[in-house]
Amino acid sequence: MTDRIRDFLRARRDMGQDEGPVMVLDLDVVRDNFTAFARALPDTRVFYAVKANPAPEVLRLLAEMGSCFDTASVVEVEMALASGATADRISFGNTIKKERCIGRALKLGVRLFAVDCEAEVEKISRAADAAGIEAGEVQVFCRILCDGAGAEWPLSRKFGCVPEMAVDVLEHACRQGLHAYGVSFHVGSQQGNIEAWDGALASASTIFRECADRGIALSMVNLGGGFPTKYLKAVPGVESYGDAIFRALTKHFGNQLPETIIEPGRGMVGNAGMIEAEVILVSKKSDAEDEIRWVYLDIGKFGGLAETMDESIRYAIRTEHDEDRMSPCVLAGPTCDSADVLYEKVPYPLPVSLSIGDKVLIEGAGAYTTTYAAVAFNGFPPLQQYVI
Amino acid sequence: MTDRIRDFLRARRDMGQDEGPVMVLDLDVVRDNFTAFARALPDTRVFYAVKANPAPEVLRLLAEMGSCFDTASVVEVEMALASGATADRISFGNTIKKERCIGRALKLGVRLFAVDCEAEVEKISRAADAAGIEAGEVQVFCRILCDGAGAEWPLSRKFGCVPEMAVDVLEHACRQGLHAYGVSFHVGSQQGNIEAWDGALASASTIFRECADRGIALSMVNLGGGFPTKYLKAVPGVESYGDAIFRALTKHFGNQLPETIIEPGRGMVGNAGMIEAEVILVSKKSDAEDEIRWVYLDIGKFGGLAETMDESIRYAIRTEHDEDRMSPCVLAGPTCDSADVLYEKVPYPLPVSLSIGDKVLIEGAGAYTTTYAAVAFNGFPPLQQYVI
Repeated sequence: MTDRIRDFLRARRDMGQDEGPVMVLDLDVVRDNFTAFARALPDTRVFYAVKANPAPEVLRLLAEMGSCFDTASVVEVEMALASGATADRISFGNTIKKERCIGRALKLGVRLFAVDCEAEVEKISRAADAAGIEAGEVQVFCRILCDGAGAEWPLSRKFGCVPEMAVDVLEHACRQGLHAYGVSFHVGSQQGNIEAWDGALASASTIFRECADRGIALSMVNLGGGFPTKYLKAVPGVESYGDAIFRALTKHFGNQLPETIIEPGRGMVGNAGMIEAEVILVSKKSDAEDEIRWVYLDIGKFGGLAETMDESIRYAIRTEHDEDRMSPCVLAGPTCDSADVLYEKVPYPLPVSLSIGDKVLIEGAGAYTTTYAAVAFNGFPPLQQYVI
Repeated sequence: MTDRIRDFLRARRDMGQDEGPVMVLDLDVVRDNFTAFARALPDTRVFYAVKANPAPEVLRLLAEMGSCFDTASVVEVEMALASGATADRISFGNTIKKERCIGRALKLGVRLFAVDCEAEVEKISRAADAAGIEAGEVQVFCRILCDGAGAEWPLSRKFGCVPEMAVDVLEHACRQGLHAYGVSFHVGSQQGNIEAWDGALASASTIFRECADRGIALSMVNLGGGFPTKYLKAVPGVESYGDAIFRALTKHFGNQLPETIIEPGRGMVGNAGMIEAEVILVSKKSDAEDEIRWVYLDIGKFGGLAETMDESIRYAIRTEHDEDRMSPCVLAGPTCDSADVLYEKVPYPLPVSLSIGDKVLIEGAGAYTTTYAAVAFNGFPPLQQYVI
């Protein structure tokens, strides 16, 4: 909680405009986070993962500070451009792209693309050809699979290929005349282990050597995201990640360090945002002595808290009664969907005095909330955001 | 697939407007479904569950046909009214309501409310008082827990209380001067067992008796939803449900049958809608002989197929190559979110010849798709819908 957010919420309530849940994001925190990343990894270019929070104010601030942008779609490319970033600061980081979307991104000036298979390389090659763009100007990097151990929102095998295949994919890009630029990986979102980059960097250096053996000089390693934000548990500072990554880079690449980029999303905006929600109901399912309380909020899984899926992300929730005795409760959202339950397998401790109408503050909600919200589920509007 | 949907999709493609996934809903199917429900349960009032698909065209058709409406929020109440239904045909079926939302619904004329605890009864009582509405005009029914066995999208314990507690809740309503009207339950969405209503009706009849012992004459049983739509497996026809429910009613209530209402959502619109999507990528993660294919569509968990959560709802997917040999694949959506995978634990058989750019048809997609879609996740727009 920052003073600015506190003041904003107070003013909103005083004006009687506090109907419905709201997310408030403090740009000062984003500014501090960017500065911390730039200091912790001074030789690494920062590509902010736009999907984490594409608010125009956030993108504008980061563009002014010199950030680059990792985008997932043409719409995100356009948002990054609209924020003032030039196309050479934009990466199309989604490995799953329609060929016509690649074409549009190329026309918008984007020259940096992620791939994880030969078919995607061919789409880029054809799209460049169709757009009349010299293939050699288009840089591609190949994403490799990574086990994601230690991450709270671990990645599936959805993105990336095995390292051995990456060599073939990059060679294929080379044969198509594209610039085989490097390797990317993602150690898993909300990664608590600062050493998690070591194994993937070992794979990356092997790919660099094998490509060199085939006459292909790779030059870039995309270290991905994974930098955590603080939810309930303390997380290591970004400087610890910087130190550990630099050690791993030196270990695996010696004195031939590659160019590097990082793609923080959650780590850039997570702790900058806070959701204020309201308790709609507190009830029990029976009169049994040991029956657990159910607490229902006016925000749930479909209103912005999608990352509570499988109870993965456990937000810190503050109330005005936190000095009181706590007792565990099941926490649920407001919709008529019975899957809209936030925490049940591991009940959430909340004050026994928490009542209907009380406000609660959900911390660390600046990333992966507003855009995840359902467009109109049960008639509820999507989560409102104020950037201050 | 209906001829009308086929023609619509063909025309759309011919006009070159088939960019992005689309859901097309055929009102003729909705009309047939309503007629089937009305025939299968002739003495039961149908309250369409608006949340399943609140398209104005759907609501208008059902309003004209005489349907009532089960709503989850004030916005849904307003949509039902806008469709031409009078307020006496609207139930506020969400057990989790803000007091000010109850007040708004009362002002809009709604007099039928779900509850599952005493606190909710008190909100209704206060809201009626504040609105200057005679408490005795306001009907409340108490939802009870139900085990949901046999359902493909089983319900958690989120809604309802144990039957013993329901008697107290209804008595509490009575003491507040409200009209204690009856009992509701939900046997679980996509319920394949036509006998699933039996156990809950036994509980309901016990509550009727116990309330009668306390001088409270209940008169209504809300049989909820749960009526399935056809996905991959065949489901029993609605007339089988009607017969089984009538048998169970007679068994538990003898010749003193209560008024009944049903709340079909999926059963009313599920099979009326079909999604057309596009294959963005087909790839493998390694060159290993037994490596599974990944097929990526331009729609996924955050674009409207939220009910693939935990691989619960298994849609029937048609392609233009269905005569070909099939092989299992992992099916995933287009976003940069690794949780956006539809079927992986149980891979989905698709033709080996399925290629990038091919269209696929996802059947039974008329319910719980459009409004679940994320507002802008990864920059992708929400699922478009055409009602024909």
